[in-house]
Amino acid sequence: MSRFQIDEATDEEIAREEALYGPFTDAVRDLVDATIRTLVAPDEIRRAQAEVEAITARLRAEQLPGSYGVKFREDGHGRPWGNAVMGLRNPIAPPLVVEKLEAGRVATDVELGAAYEGPPGLVHGGVVALVLDQLLGQAVSSGGRPGMTGTLTLTYRRGTPLGPLRGEAWIEHRDGIKTWGRGRLLDGDGEVTAEAEGVFILPRWARDLPEAEHVSYFE
Amino acid sequence: MSRFQIDEATDEEIAREEALYGPFTDAVRDLVDATIRTLVAPDEIRRAQAEVEAITARLRAEQLPGSYGVKFREDGHGRPWGNAVMGLRNPIAPPLVVEKLEAGRVATDVELGAAYEGPPGLVHGGVVALVLDQLLGQAVSSGGRPGMTGTLTLTYRRGTPLGPLRGEAWIEHRDGIKTWGRGRLLDGDGEVTAEAEGVFILPRWARDLPEAEHVSYFE
Repeated sequence: MSRFQIDEATDEEIAREEALYGPFTDAVRDLVDATIRTLVAPDEIRRAQAEVEAITARLRAEQLPGSYGVKFREDGHGRPWGNAVMGLRNPIAPPLVVEKLEAGRVATDVELGAAYEGPPGLVHGGVVALVLDQLLGQAVSSGGRPGMTGTLTLTYRRGTPLGPLRGEAWIEHRDGIKTWGRGRLLDGDGEVTAEAEGVFILPRWARDLPEAEHVSYFE
Repeated sequence: MSRFQIDEATDEEIAREEALYGPFTDAVRDLVDATIRTLVAPDEIRRAQAEVEAITARLRAEQLPGSYGVKFREDGHGRPWGNAVMGLRNPIAPPLVVEKLEAGRVATDVELGAAYEGPPGLVHGGVVALVLDQLLGQAVSSGGRPGMTGTLTLTYRRGTPLGPLRGEAWIEHRDGIKTWGRGRLLDGDGEVTAEAEGVFILPRWARDLPEAEHVSYFE
C-alpha cells in the first residue's frame, strides 16, 4: 500500500476526501502547536494524554499497513497526501501550498509557527532546508521532468524568523538527466534569509518515457 | 517568553516535567502517525476531529504567547524542548536523541515513520537535511563552540528508506569563528544514503566569552 499506486478515485471522491481529511489534519496540527505551548496544570495534561490515546486507538482500528505513499491518477497527477512538507493528511506538514508561476518556476507563502523552531524565535536551519528542497524539487518537476535530489547546497544569510515567509524556486538549466534548480526564502520584510541550489536527477523509471508522459509528482 | 531565558528549575523539577510532558508528547506523536494512516469511516474521523479540537481548546486555556524558545541553566546547559528535531515537547520531532561519543563527535539511532515520507516509502530529502543539519550542529557544539549553520551541502547517494536509521557527525576542522562539520546517514543495512558537510559560525554574542563559558546549546 505504501509505494506507487494507481488512484482510481473520481474528482468528486477526491473533493469529498479533501473536505473530510483537510479539516481533521488541521485540527491535529493545531493540537501539535498547543502541545508545545500549553501551560495548563499537570492533571489537565494527563487527562489530555488519556483522551489522545483513546482517539489514536480508534483511528488505528483500520489503517494502512505502512506509510501513505503517493497515489497516481491515470493522467499522471499524484496525490502526495502523506508528504512531510506538502501532505494534506500529514499534521507535520505546514502544509506548503506551492503555486506554479510558469513552467519551471514556483512560489509559496507559508506561515511557520512554534513547531518549526530551532534557535529561539527562529526557524530551524533544517526546516529551512526541508522547505527549500521541496520547492526546488517542484520547480524542477513543473518544468516537465521530475527529479530526485542529487545534491543540495544551502547558504544561510541570516536567521529566519518564525512567522509568515515566502519561498521562490526556479530551474537554472538542464543537461540530460540532470536539472539544476535555485531558490530562496524571504522573511516578512522581504529580506532573503537563505538560498539554495540543487541538482535533481531524473529517476531511472522515467527515462524511457516521452517527456509528456513524465509523471508529475506534485501537481 | 520565546527567546533565551534563564532556567531556574531544579533537577527534580526538570525530571518531573520530563515525566509529564514526555509521554504526553509521545501520545500526540502517535496520533500524528494514525492521522496519516487511518482508514476508519468518515463519521469516526469527524468525531475524532471534534474531540481533538476540544482538547486543544483546553490546552490553550493557559499557554506561552509564542514559541517555546530555549531555557538555559546557570551551568550553560540548555533545554531546547520546543526544537523541531530534538524537542521533548515537540510532536513533530522524532525526537532525535543524540549521543556524544567524544568532544566533536556525535551519533544517533532514530526511527523515521510515515510522517517523514517524501517519495513513496522513502524519507523526504528535506527531512534527511533536517536530521543532518541538527547532527552536524551538535557535533560542532560538542566540541566546545556552538555555531549557527552558515552553509550546508547535502549529497544524496540513494533513497533513504523509512524505518531505523543511524546518523553520525563530527568536526572536520576549526578556523577562527568557523567550524567545519561532516556527517552521514545510514540505512538499516548500514549503507550510507546521504552525506553532509557544513560550516558553522560562532554567534556574535558568544565571541567575547572564554571558551569554557560558551553556552552549550543542546547538551
